[in-house]
Amino acid sequence: MASMGIGRWLTRREELSGEKVAIVCGDHRWTYRSLNRRVNRLANALNDLGVREGDRVAVLLPNGSEILEFLFACAKLGAILVPINFRLAPEEVRYIVEDAVPVCLAYHRMFAATVDPLQGEDNGVRHWIRVGTPAGEASPDLGYEALVEGGSEEEPERDISLDRVHMMMYTSGTTGKPKGALLTHGNTTWNVVNTLGRIPVGEDEITLTVAPLFHIGAMNILTTPTLYRGGTVVVEDRFDPLRLLEAIERERVTSLFLVPAMWLALLQVADFERYDLRSLRFAVSGGAPCPLTVIEFFQERGVPFFEGFGMTETSPSVCILDGADARRKRGSVGKPLMHVDVRIVDDADRDVPMGEVGELLVRGPSVMVGYWNRPRETREALRDGWLHTGDLARRDEEGFLYLVDRKKDMIITGGENVYPVEVEQVLYRHPKIREAAVVGIPDDRWGESVKAVVAVKEGESLTLEELRAFCDGKLARYKIPRVLEVVEALPRNAAGKVLKTVLRRG
Amino acid sequence: MASMGIGRWLTRREELSGEKVAIVCGDHRWTYRSLNRRVNRLANALNDLGVREGDRVAVLLPNGSEILEFLFACAKLGAILVPINFRLAPEEVRYIVEDAVPVCLAYHRMFAATVDPLQGEDNGVRHWIRVGTPAGEASPDLGYEALVEGGSEEEPERDISLDRVHMMMYTSGTTGKPKGALLTHGNTTWNVVNTLGRIPVGEDEITLTVAPLFHIGAMNILTTPTLYRGGTVVVEDRFDPLRLLEAIERERVTSLFLVPAMWLALLQVADFERYDLRSLRFAVSGGAPCPLTVIEFFQERGVPFFEGFGMTETSPSVCILDGADARRKRGSVGKPLMHVDVRIVDDADRDVPMGEVGELLVRGPSVMVGYWNRPRETREALRDGWLHTGDLARRDEEGFLYLVDRKKDMIITGGENVYPVEVEQVLYRHPKIREAAVVGIPDDRWGESVKAVVAVKEGESLTLEELRAFCDGKLARYKIPRVLEVVEALPRNAAGKVLKTVLRRG
Repeated sequence: MASMGIGRWLTRREELSGEKVAIVCGDHRWTYRSLNRRVNRLANALNDLGVREGDRVAVLLPNGSEILEFLFACAKLGAILVPINFRLAPEEVRYIVEDAVPVCLAYHRMFAATVDPLQGEDNGVRHWIRVGTPAGEASPDLGYEALVEGGSEEEPERDISLDRVHMMMYTSGTTGKPKGALLTHGNTTWNVVNTLGRIPVGEDEITLTVAPLFHIGAMNILTTPTLYRGGTVVVEDRFDPLRLLEAIERERVTSLFLVPAMWLALLQVADFERYDLRSLRFAVSGGAPCPLTVIEFFQERGVPFFEGFGMTETSPSVCILDGADARRKRGSVGKPLMHVDVRIVDDADRDVPMGEVGELLVRGPSVMVGYWNRPRETREALRDGWLHTGDLARRDEEGFLYLVDRKKDMIITGGENVYPVEVEQVLYRHPKIREAAVVGIPDDRWGESVKAVVAVKEGESLTLEELRAFCDGKLARYKIPRVLEVVEALPRNAAGKVLKTVLRRG
Repeated sequence: MASMGIGRWLTRREELSGEKVAIVCGDHRWTYRSLNRRVNRLANALNDLGVREGDRVAVLLPNGSEILEFLFACAKLGAILVPINFRLAPEEVRYIVEDAVPVCLAYHRMFAATVDPLQGEDNGVRHWIRVGTPAGEASPDLGYEALVEGGSEEEPERDISLDRVHMMMYTSGTTGKPKGALLTHGNTTWNVVNTLGRIPVGEDEITLTVAPLFHIGAMNILTTPTLYRGGTVVVEDRFDPLRLLEAIERERVTSLFLVPAMWLALLQVADFERYDLRSLRFAVSGGAPCPLTVIEFFQERGVPFFEGFGMTETSPSVCILDGADARRKRGSVGKPLMHVDVRIVDDADRDVPMGEVGELLVRGPSVMVGYWNRPRETREALRDGWLHTGDLARRDEEGFLYLVDRKKDMIITGGENVYPVEVEQVLYRHPKIREAAVVGIPDDRWGESVKAVVAVKEGESLTLEELRAFCDGKLARYKIPRVLEVVEALPRNAAGKVLKTVLRRG
């Protein structure tokens, strides 16, 4: 068997078209040759630092070429990239670092405040790599550019098999504690194969990536498939609708993945129609259900619009809805990709009849191999070889899938998943709170937003401001409740379970 | 892991776009729905006949939907398709049947003369399936359409893994006896992945297949990738340049794979320019080196032209040359595909320096798992996990590969491979021949043609007509020498080895 690592993609693309632009990022344009050479240098430098096969390399980085360089450098070494959500609170980042035990942690200086306190702690990190130090200024830690320059340009020769883990992405869940989903070279490769089987990513693709690359959607829906095919990725480090429109026009962008909140903001730009977006060949949304108005806006202008459904554990693509079906099959997530099997089952894992609701199970070569150091959760999630998604779904007579509800109670706000239990655990630490529940409520801009319903202790009172101040630093901002309702007692059913549907109705 | 069999492709395509046309063949148009249902019926009927996982199903069929139906039906059952070259002589077909021991053999009635004598023999074939019996006429054997109609339409549920063999294609070689190259579901799938990584086969593809589907090139260069992507395959059962041009015009064909002799014949049609070929988006050649005039004809008209290099043992694609490089890199076979590794080595399997000539080795998930019932040849061919191709090659500083010579002495005539030893073995059976050697000589139309150089026994003489009559029925027509040279004695080197380069110069 050939060396099947995803790092090989860049090597092959350098061989095929070394002068083509791989990444555009700010004023930098990296060709496949320069990108692959930088990745080799980084890989060899990491190796010199002692990074070995299976070792974790954590990154706390904004969108940029660096995070993609780490992705491929780790892949070439057989090491495991751990991208950390930079919106997390310091306490949450600490948890991930302590769980993943990375050999090194690369961070952008804009996140120094989060990283600084970790540097004195006993967390196993042996090397701190600092990205973004301006030229001429001394870096307090190992400077990224100096590190890359110090590495040999030679191709690291490793025989990497498809079943080796190359990335570990943290995802929360019912337990409230983030778990590292272990994604293999095979998972990522088959996700590309599945994507190319349905979405026409070409050699001349110019995709723009602005959703954060620490999320599987931004990383694998269009970014890695475009690099696989030898196209160009225009990386933007923050979402600004005007800047985005200018970039599409300037770079002749051919494809774009955004989360629904971004699509909405884009279309709301006052002089949207003034921009020349004729280079756009197709558009993709994911992370949460996309409003029909957005889908039809593009479809009507001859730009095919695809809606993807998936999760970190599935690398992520499970289903794609073709925009042409969006009205007829309103609310559907579409049909499974080529190498993805799905089932809808009852509580005893028996298939339900067509049209009935059950839990969605997913199987296939893009499904993760498990959670890092979580044998029990892994067994539970991957029962009988099928990923138990926790999503409730049904399938119609034409094979379209519909998500009916989330078994896990998950809230999606602005493309970010929030698990209520994770927020509730923090609320319970507040001295005034007796009991607390967290639900998602509809929000025009973010899809959903986080609402806390709490009962306070005898004689106490609580304001939203107090609550938010308490959560600051313990929870990522997007997880902190935007709405607070104080009640006498939480509504519960006879078994004592909190009735969240009642709370959602408010 | 999901069921990864290639039969699943049709199931998935029926789910996605059941009404799209999958195969056009004469007056028939099969949608993905009707094709998948026919394939299910055939699979279940074969199962009812006793075809089990791993059993061989041989077919002696012209191009048509039937051979593709057998391909996918066998895949769904876990059985092994054995496509037999219908140009082979009866004696050669007998050899393959005796070697493969198929449970059933499907043949078109136009090949009855070849099959009839086999039916009385002890070769293990339990069922003879006859294709092409006109409606209303009784079939002497099991009629194909009746068989299909008798099968259940239900999807055969089998968990097929990528490492299971689905096809066995016979290829000759230095030993002179055809060997069955074992190709797995994974081999064929990765060949599709490799193809899609370089050639833009799309969902709206309409490809035309006229080269014989019993060859890996016609089967896997564009036919299976197009079916994987949900496009349309227009199948033509014989090569006629005028008919082909009409079909391209009528069906709005978007892509075309031909062998060089066919490309030449096409361009030589007197009123070629009268046909509307504007639907053509790209063209592919393979099987033998393609003249630069053909490549440039299309490139100059804005139709990208790809030249593929490969072999049965590699499913087949190893390298692709982009037509844009054809003049600058004249004679090159291009660069390896994404998931193909190549090396060029000396006789001790050590890599040679860049630019030097050595044997071409190939590795990757599209490389066969071995030869059927040939452990010794398999070990020899797949030494250290690398396929030893027998081709001599060199690589230039930009990574382009050049085939310098064929270590195996193979002749390519009109896209068919002829191994001299196979022909020589028949010649040696001629009572008048003392010694014989076979070489390829340049031929404007066929690329090369077969020349025999023989020394006759004391007092004998031999004409080309006599020789050809003797070979008739023992060798496929294209293998029978077209030129005969009678010599006193074959030129040999000091070690007694025949000097073929001297013979070629004639």
